[in-house]
Amino acid sequence: MKEIKVTLSDRDIPKRWYNLAADLPTPLQPPLGPDGKPISPDMLEKVFPMNLIEQEVSTERWIDIPEEVLELLYRWRPAPLKRAVYLEQYLKTPAHIYYKDESLSPAGSHKPNTAVAQAWYNKQFGIKKLTTETGAGQWGSAIAFASQLLGLECKVFMVRISFDQKPFRKIMMRVWGANCVASPSHETRAGREVLKKDPRTPGSLGIAISEAIEEAVMDPSGKTRYCLGSVLNHVMLHQTIIGLEAQKQLKMAGIKNPDIVIGCAGGGSNFAGISFPFVCEKIHGAKIKIIPVEPTACPTLTRGPFSYDFGDVARMTPLLPMHTLGHSFIPEPIHAGGLRYHGMAPLVSQGVIEGLLEPQAIDQVKCYEAALLWARTEGAICAPETSHAIACTIEEAVKAREEGKQKNILFCYSGHGLMDLSGYEKFLNGELKDSSLPESLLQEAIAAIRHHPQPKLQKTGNW
Amino acid sequence: MKEIKVTLSDRDIPKRWYNLAADLPTPLQPPLGPDGKPISPDMLEKVFPMNLIEQEVSTERWIDIPEEVLELLYRWRPAPLKRAVYLEQYLKTPAHIYYKDESLSPAGSHKPNTAVAQAWYNKQFGIKKLTTETGAGQWGSAIAFASQLLGLECKVFMVRISFDQKPFRKIMMRVWGANCVASPSHETRAGREVLKKDPRTPGSLGIAISEAIEEAVMDPSGKTRYCLGSVLNHVMLHQTIIGLEAQKQLKMAGIKNPDIVIGCAGGGSNFAGISFPFVCEKIHGAKIKIIPVEPTACPTLTRGPFSYDFGDVARMTPLLPMHTLGHSFIPEPIHAGGLRYHGMAPLVSQGVIEGLLEPQAIDQVKCYEAALLWARTEGAICAPETSHAIACTIEEAVKAREEGKQKNILFCYSGHGLMDLSGYEKFLNGELKDSSLPESLLQEAIAAIRHHPQPKLQKTGNW
Repeated sequence: MKEIKVTLSDRDIPKRWYNLAADLPTPLQPPLGPDGKPISPDMLEKVFPMNLIEQEVSTERWIDIPEEVLELLYRWRPAPLKRAVYLEQYLKTPAHIYYKDESLSPAGSHKPNTAVAQAWYNKQFGIKKLTTETGAGQWGSAIAFASQLLGLECKVFMVRISFDQKPFRKIMMRVWGANCVASPSHETRAGREVLKKDPRTPGSLGIAISEAIEEAVMDPSGKTRYCLGSVLNHVMLHQTIIGLEAQKQLKMAGIKNPDIVIGCAGGGSNFAGISFPFVCEKIHGAKIKIIPVEPTACPTLTRGPFSYDFGDVARMTPLLPMHTLGHSFIPEPIHAGGLRYHGMAPLVSQGVIEGLLEPQAIDQVKCYEAALLWARTEGAICAPETSHAIACTIEEAVKAREEGKQKNILFCYSGHGLMDLSGYEKFLNGELKDSSLPESLLQEAIAAIRHHPQPKLQKTGNW
Repeated sequence: MKEIKVTLSDRDIPKRWYNLAADLPTPLQPPLGPDGKPISPDMLEKVFPMNLIEQEVSTERWIDIPEEVLELLYRWRPAPLKRAVYLEQYLKTPAHIYYKDESLSPAGSHKPNTAVAQAWYNKQFGIKKLTTETGAGQWGSAIAFASQLLGLECKVFMVRISFDQKPFRKIMMRVWGANCVASPSHETRAGREVLKKDPRTPGSLGIAISEAIEEAVMDPSGKTRYCLGSVLNHVMLHQTIIGLEAQKQLKMAGIKNPDIVIGCAGGGSNFAGISFPFVCEKIHGAKIKIIPVEPTACPTLTRGPFSYDFGDVARMTPLLPMHTLGHSFIPEPIHAGGLRYHGMAPLVSQGVIEGLLEPQAIDQVKCYEAALLWARTEGAICAPETSHAIACTIEEAVKAREEGKQKNILFCYSGHGLMDLSGYEKFLNGELKDSSLPESLLQEAIAAIRHHPQPKLQKTGNW
């Protein structure tokens, strides 16, 4: 029998999260306030509960996972590490392709890993209601799920284009008791302003974030907080359970470190989850190629400058040091809604600056080709976001064939595509086109960013 | 940490299927031909490959699973046995609720267990193309998936009401390379005849079966065969891997036999899968309550006579001895499309006659209530079919609380509901009504059956 799965026993689930901030060669630059000065943790306390703010600024290498959070995670974790032997055979590659299957969670992606942790910390802090934004709906579903488990009220602002393209995600959130509205909405000042300018806007994660923050900080009871499914340090932290499990499982398969680690990157959370424990190995001398993959429609890491920028359109967030296309940039409505974010997690961005990561951008047509090959060899239907990681994996596996080298490739299978089948239909009908960001729009976006304060860092990026 | 999962190691996957026909107190009655006489295996050879016909008529207790079929199953099996501790807590029941999670297969249900086996046996026999019918689309997706893995062509006739209600199932089948058409269609004589009488018919499994068989037997190359996702003996056989795994897992949890075993029943396959190994234990003296659960809209086991009847509307199948509402009966278009079948597997039917099974019928509104409670306690969104098993499980768990008895309940979580969210939306909007079959229509259906030949069996049914 072929070995195609490495199952971690329940008692071997990692008990601590890994914090890359402890190991980065250059310390992370602080978030800045509207005055251009570093903000202090208490300036965020109307937005996030203090226990999560402490995690956000922590430089401890290991942070214990509370027992009750482990119990929540334990509902669907540890996730299996699988080997894509059928894809390998099809590609006639000597590479071994391993992937962490994060699609098996109740919400169908890696997002619940941080959703249950965030909901738990908020509840510990006495919070009654969470607000958030969602792109493709993966994060919105995950936080609806987590809020339901912990008895919290939940309101989700869903980017309009996804709200329309993915009608069933809304029902999922409703099944889990959440209130899901299309963004921009008329329910916030930020939403109304955008709608006034462009009533037919497809929306963006940046706008939806503005609305969700506004809804949280304006609650007079003070019992509402905002939560974010990506970008921030504590979100990256919670997701490292993916890579920590994978490390244990690869060792069980006799592999000390993979040669290549791949994850798709929108805000950076599943990429951080699978890769950060290996980035740590790389910092300490291991030779690993680590690739965040983004869409050519939103090439934040490959083309965006590393700069201080707002996380949202309405400039309600602090300025974060990150690769960005500008907080007012609205990407094409590609099907991988979760990758349509103008910025990138500061930890991932700095990993690029430090030369630890080698980002790539791939167009959605090529990604759907990869997704179809995956479905027809491995059997499962992946999320459009995940297809970016698969497309890159296929490229690397083909390269290994051409080089005649047996390489071990690890990627994050971040979610299933069962809620996103309309994209497959368009692809099968030949209706999808190259969605790469035109050079003129890119230059326009970059020009707008040049006026922001610049992080004081040694940069090696290629933009 | 609460124990909520029992994981079977890959090497412990069952290597043989269990055949209940070997142990039934009274031998199964044979299928009859159009002349009322028992048919011989070779009369089926235009419909099924001979290797599956041999399984269909086998009375061997154990049948080895071929190594290559194990490898196909091994892509997603063994399935975890989980314990629904959060539902237990909500219900304040002393009962322990265990379930086999069959939703984790690529097609999202238990159906691939037999789909990969059937596709493999057909391929072994030199067949190039499979035809089939599908209700909710679970079976159609599963056979599309299996055909793709084995390189067979695949055509699926999908019941019109589901084709319209579940648009994404079609895309899934297309992703896996299958051709899916709405039934009744204009592509077969059987379909055209039904459409002539009622152009707006919602269709039924019975009609779709007629079309799929016609398409197979009319292929002049002789390289096309029909396959069925339920009802037949060899399908029940392939699904017993569910119950055989559960037996091993319950023993790991220190439980020799559960007190109660529950599965939803449309054609009978997931019910047979979870229950038959325990029916064997019951025949040999164990005290187990075994409950097939059906919708009140299609109460085959609880209200239909045990009689010889055709499996399809156009009378292309042999006469099978089963509980039936008559081959021309068309149930209400409830959301649990997979439970809208007029008949029931002969093996399950006879289990009822022998007093081994205690069928129940539950209305879909109550089932959706159960599904919502499940989603809000356990976290996962179940298929409308599966909700019938959950509703019954909740009733039994509440009974255990009232009796003050610790009972072990096992049920089959046959599939996820991510492709069936429109039913949840209607339920949440208060748009679903009691769908029980009116007594007058039931009596009409029963009257039509009385003219068929009757099986020569001691009957104990309550119809």
